[in-house]
Amino acid sequence: MLGHVMKKIEHIGIAVKSILEANKIYEALLGVAPYKSEKVESEGVETSFFKCGESKIELLEATNPDSPIAKFIEKRGEGIHHIAFAVENIESEMARLQKEGFVLLNEKPKKGADNKLVAFLHPKSANGVLVELCQEIHNN
Amino acid sequence: MLGHVMKKIEHIGIAVKSILEANKIYEALLGVAPYKSEKVESEGVETSFFKCGESKIELLEATNPDSPIAKFIEKRGEGIHHIAFAVENIESEMARLQKEGFVLLNEKPKKGADNKLVAFLHPKSANGVLVELCQEIHNN
Repeated sequence: MLGHVMKKIEHIGIAVKSILEANKIYEALLGVAPYKSEKVESEGVETSFFKCGESKIELLEATNPDSPIAKFIEKRGEGIHHIAFAVENIESEMARLQKEGFVLLNEKPKKGADNKLVAFLHPKSANGVLVELCQEIHNN
Repeated sequence: MLGHVMKKIEHIGIAVKSILEANKIYEALLGVAPYKSEKVESEGVETSFFKCGESKIELLEATNPDSPIAKFIEKRGEGIHHIAFAVENIESEMARLQKEGFVLLNEKPKKGADNKLVAFLHPKSANGVLVELCQEIHNN
């Protein structure tokens, strides 16, 4: 037993066609306004974040037709895109999970939205779930 | 502004073909064993639960071919099935959300897994996301 290596659900990513429309729906659902909007050019996404307990809901709209979010929506429609777990040390978690037989989609952690280092596991590794690992970047 | 009416992500439900196989995968992923297994006959599911921070991961296997989980997997394959939010008072939240224009799949709360009263919102209401509301049942 390794103890709780995934500290918490950092966020759930939801693919939407229009972030402006979806912001209204999720503000009504959650009872709070988004606390942040952010464009991540490298991923081809526009994002917005809502707080919910210790976790967040991240809405994702594609900024170009080659964006993974555009392809996801084309194939499956709007809906839950990924689960992100908070980890203390992303590189050691990536090594641990690879040893456990999970397939990593990134060789090295990359800069994600909301000031995080991130890496993804292939959905085939985890019963069809796209899993993201997130480590907070500490700015000194 | 209503403040945080959804207190936290109570759990994320994941539809799997074999809960025995998926238990091994999620134990390896999360670094903890499931703390509970439960059959919910009324829903046609076998479930297992893993703790992750203040939230849980719920794995769901269909116990019969008419189960919503069997139909989900047939249509979309294994993967994330729903997000459940913890609420203080499920009846007042159902009334509030109905007024906001969300479509409820239950007229009244029903008994769900893990000692909860639950109700669902139609995925069309929330950008393709099946949303569950969960209120803890207090046994006195």
